[in-house]
Amino acid sequence: MNSFTLTVTCLSTRGVVAAISGYLAREGCNISDSTQFDDRETGRFFMRISFLSEQGRTLEDLDAGFAAVAAPLSMDYSFHDEAARMKVVLMVSRFGHCLNDLLYRWRIGALPIDIVAVISNHLDYQKVVVNHDIPFHYIRVTKENKAAAEARQLAVVEEIGAELIVLARYMQVLSDDMCTRMSGRIINIHHSFLPSFKGANPYKQAYERGVKLIGATAHYVTADLDEGPIIEQDTVRVTHAQSAADYVSLGRDVESQVLARAIHAHIHRRVFLNGNKTVVFPAGPGAYASKRMG
Amino acid sequence: MNSFTLTVTCLSTRGVVAAISGYLAREGCNISDSTQFDDRETGRFFMRISFLSEQGRTLEDLDAGFAAVAAPLSMDYSFHDEAARMKVVLMVSRFGHCLNDLLYRWRIGALPIDIVAVISNHLDYQKVVVNHDIPFHYIRVTKENKAAAEARQLAVVEEIGAELIVLARYMQVLSDDMCTRMSGRIINIHHSFLPSFKGANPYKQAYERGVKLIGATAHYVTADLDEGPIIEQDTVRVTHAQSAADYVSLGRDVESQVLARAIHAHIHRRVFLNGNKTVVFPAGPGAYASKRMG
Amino acid sequence: MNSFTLTVTCLSTRGVVAAISGYLAREGCNISDSTQFDDRETGRFFMRISFLSEQGRTLEDLDAGFAAVAAPLSMDYSFHDEAARMKVVLMVSRFGHCLNDLLYRWRIGALPIDIVAVISNHLDYQKVVVNHDIPFHYIRVTKENKAAAEARQLAVVEEIGAELIVLARYMQVLSDDMCTRMSGRIINIHHSFLPSFKGANPYKQAYERGVKLIGATAHYVTADLDEGPIIEQDTVRVTHAQSAADYVSLGRDVESQVLARAIHAHIHRRVFLNGNKTVVFPAGPGAYASKRMG
Amino acid sequence: MNSFTLTVTCLSTRGVVAAISGYLAREGCNISDSTQFDDRETGRFFMRISFLSEQGRTLEDLDAGFAAVAAPLSMDYSFHDEAARMKVVLMVSRFGHCLNDLLYRWRIGALPIDIVAVISNHLDYQKVVVNHDIPFHYIRVTKENKAAAEARQLAVVEEIGAELIVLARYMQVLSDDMCTRMSGRIINIHHSFLPSFKGANPYKQAYERGVKLIGATAHYVTADLDEGPIIEQDTVRVTHAQSAADYVSLGRDVESQVLARAIHAHIHRRVFLNGNKTVVFPAGPGAYASKRMG
Repeated sequence: MNSFTLTVTCLSTRGVVAAISGYLAREGCNISDSTQFDDRETGRFFMRISFLSEQGRTLEDLDAGFAAVAAPLSMDYSFHDEAARMKVVLMVSRFGHCLNDLLYRWRIGALPIDIVAVISNHLDYQKVVVNHDIPFHYIRVTKENKAAAEARQLAVVEEIGAELIVLARYMQVLSDDMCTRMSGRIINIHHSFLPSFKGANPYKQAYERGVKLIGATAHYVTADLDEGPIIEQDTVRVTHAQSAADYVSLGRDVESQVLARAIHAHIHRRVFLNGNKTVVFPAGPGAYASKRMG
Repeated sequence: MNSFTLTVTCLSTRGVVAAISGYLAREGCNISDSTQFDDRETGRFFMRISFLSEQGRTLEDLDAGFAAVAAPLSMDYSFHDEAARMKVVLMVSRFGHCLNDLLYRWRIGALPIDIVAVISNHLDYQKVVVNHDIPFHYIRVTKENKAAAEARQLAVVEEIGAELIVLARYMQVLSDDMCTRMSGRIINIHHSFLPSFKGANPYKQAYERGVKLIGATAHYVTADLDEGPIIEQDTVRVTHAQSAADYVSLGRDVESQVLARAIHAHIHRRVFLNGNKTVVFPAGPGAYASKRMG
Repeated sequence: MNSFTLTVTCLSTRGVVAAISGYLAREGCNISDSTQFDDRETGRFFMRISFLSEQGRTLEDLDAGFAAVAAPLSMDYSFHDEAARMKVVLMVSRFGHCLNDLLYRWRIGALPIDIVAVISNHLDYQKVVVNHDIPFHYIRVTKENKAAAEARQLAVVEEIGAELIVLARYMQVLSDDMCTRMSGRIINIHHSFLPSFKGANPYKQAYERGVKLIGATAHYVTADLDEGPIIEQDTVRVTHAQSAADYVSLGRDVESQVLARAIHAHIHRRVFLNGNKTVVFPAGPGAYASKRMG
Repeated sequence: MNSFTLTVTCLSTRGVVAAISGYLAREGCNISDSTQFDDRETGRFFMRISFLSEQGRTLEDLDAGFAAVAAPLSMDYSFHDEAARMKVVLMVSRFGHCLNDLLYRWRIGALPIDIVAVISNHLDYQKVVVNHDIPFHYIRVTKENKAAAEARQLAVVEEIGAELIVLARYMQVLSDDMCTRMSGRIINIHHSFLPSFKGANPYKQAYERGVKLIGATAHYVTADLDEGPIIEQDTVRVTHAQSAADYVSLGRDVESQVLARAIHAHIHRRVFLNGNKTVVFPAGPGAYASKRMG
């Protein structure tokens, strides 16, 4: 008996919930969780449903059969097997705390993903990655080879069929082309509470402005730097007694957690793009649990 | 065109969402928000649906027609008009911050309730209540007149047909009988992070234990003191440099907010009793907005 | 036996703490609380000391005698009587939640200030202010009379000898001249987490950017709009399900609290200007306690 | 030029700050940070001072010379070299997240300690510890060998001269004797917001009580289980939609951080025992900064 997730977006219309839930009932599926959002401003409808297929319908059956339900309401939809692990490529430069954190969560099963590769423009984390039996790709990036380097990165992603790229403090700007190609499939962690302190050295900017909280922002990457749809943010208190170097340390925890929460939401299909914003549904029962102790 | 809310609880069964949403679609209702929870441990299903009745069905029509849908699945359900304001009685003793906070939220429309009466065993807030044009009932409580006093309190509640009693720092223990009679309809604010520091003087207890956070808990009142189902909690940081008297001050904000959030959830039918626990669904779009500025 | 506070800033030099504490010991004063900060970047030293004058020295005695200690180290210093209440003028426009909150805290003694006047460019809160027996000054502001209106405001402030102006959601921009004249003595609450969303309609800006936390910032007012030294900030979580109108409601609590905390710090002489930043020392024992219950 | 820290406790007396700072000034020391606390209830005085010895006085010089200052006021005091790293023994059972987190912070210099040994009653983390070039001691504990096992643990601690034991989710109860012997030098992380949910399985207890926040508590270990002086606590929000297994996952981050913050405070001599409570001074400038990137 399989657990599946269905995500749907369409124009908000009377009868849409009945159409979807009626279909699932007819196909012998038992809904275990569902959330919806109607954007009053745009008239868009968003829905995420978890269900058990109690009478043996497969993902393919359900997907094929749903076409007739979706067509009249022009639904965008997709079915997912909850047991399938998303293939993820991590990219990192020289700050390793997010990488370390994600590897740990992956190792103990708290982030049920397949880390299919780590790409870095530095060699600092080659050993730690290799010790986790994950392929490590050292792709140096210079002013001169930027396009070629990116082609190699994309090749890695596409050969493995990775569905998500996570920029875990990867400090090179991606080209517009790559951003467009992987739209909604690259998550970046920015070390400030956006839209404050875009660009380089946000902790130094924060220190100089004298803010009383610093923060971190996980967002989808778009061609417009630090302007992509925000998935998750959080803040942490600082005082006059902390220097910019202290901020870097204090920011590590909040960066790691904000990024991990954003990935968790993405892989559970809880995040929907809504123009330049996101809809993020809360986690369902059991979504955080992991089997291993460490 | 009216906005209604439907709440349903029953055993979790295949087809329940389809049954409910199918009915609403047939009756010309457009679902604008819905959330559900399946308790895996108990097998109970909880659902809250907001919808617009676009073809003129009244609350009475919908309620009557739903009986046939509800019966086969043994649903407990009720329909509510979102424009109707719940009748609420506030009870207060000598600490006035929650009362002041609730009166303000009510005044500016942030808590869309009807405060039909304030009952107090002291006279401290008679003037402020009367200035808000709310009936004030001074019901003195002593060891000797406890039962009689409570009978008078109940008389106030029942004559007005109040649906909710809020103990806004009311410092008398209610009788088992009253707790049972008003089960799920009395909300209390306790000035600690329950289950820590039950009973009297929780801030002093907290100070003596040397905790680093103090808190507040809003819960439904049951015969078992400070043990009722928790609706909302929050905490605030303290240090060694604060005394128990400081805690009292620092606790005011968190008490006021926790209580206001619990009432907000209750009046929007977002809280469900689930044994000795609660299910609290998140607020729908626009639920916090108020028209007035102050 | 009186409680006094001494604040000192000077260049960081060896012996400065000994000089200060030695003086206080010789004058029969018992230090009950002290905090210091050495800004490594600028070399500035900041100190706040609370003490009891156990042998009868008055504020004037101490102030006069300290000159000889302060001179060699070029200290800026001032002594304050902890029992003296700072004279404060509140200014408000049409949003009344901060005003309501401050009046309440003042009423119960949680903010030990003298509210000597409320100035407004609207009449909305005349009645509530008058009912608190506080002089209300209605000073209309239009494009044409801006300078004259400000002159009247300043006249109110100067006649009463007010030491602090609090802009409790006062929506008119003050002139550069007034900002300079009252430098470090005007506190404003801005309804965003600065430096994000400066200027008008920050909640709408926040909604459009799709942030996951909204915030509030209390800062000293300078000629450079929304750029003054930040005293206190805080944030509160929002989701896709809240509209800009919901933000306005959710922001009320955080605005009120951030402003109250900033005023609390200022009146207890815990805030120091440090260029365009602030040093904010933590509250000493008993600083939050208030005698009244509501 | 060395950075030292001086900690002092004594009865609160007039002149104590002058005596301490006067001594340091005479010895050519420049105070860079200082905080004090006067406990009004007990009359105890607590002070922590950071300073630079600008004229070459060594720790030994200063310590010897201070005796004459300390004696008349019966001060307990100690001088510490800020460059010296505290020797720490970690103990762990089967949950590895705190261990992983502490190893990472140690590795990048964010926790400037010497981890001189890891002791475990299980073999799960032998490999990870050994890969960090830290001695791993597998000391099995059974009902029968408890005393012998503890003797071996103490032997490890004492042979290396460890100054602190950290119970990083070590699930065996220590004997009264060991608790007394290492009083104020064993820090435990308990996975609840104490005093709620003492003893075994706090997440299950929390789930059953239906709390809306879960938490973690770092405290000094005493013979009285889960009753020792609290150093640090924090909480994280949960909803009805999370199971006890989810709590375990959500609790990992808060446990790891609370423990790391408590250790950070302890090793910087910011924590003082005050009866069954603690005084925890805020971190000084630069205290969080670390040189390495990951």
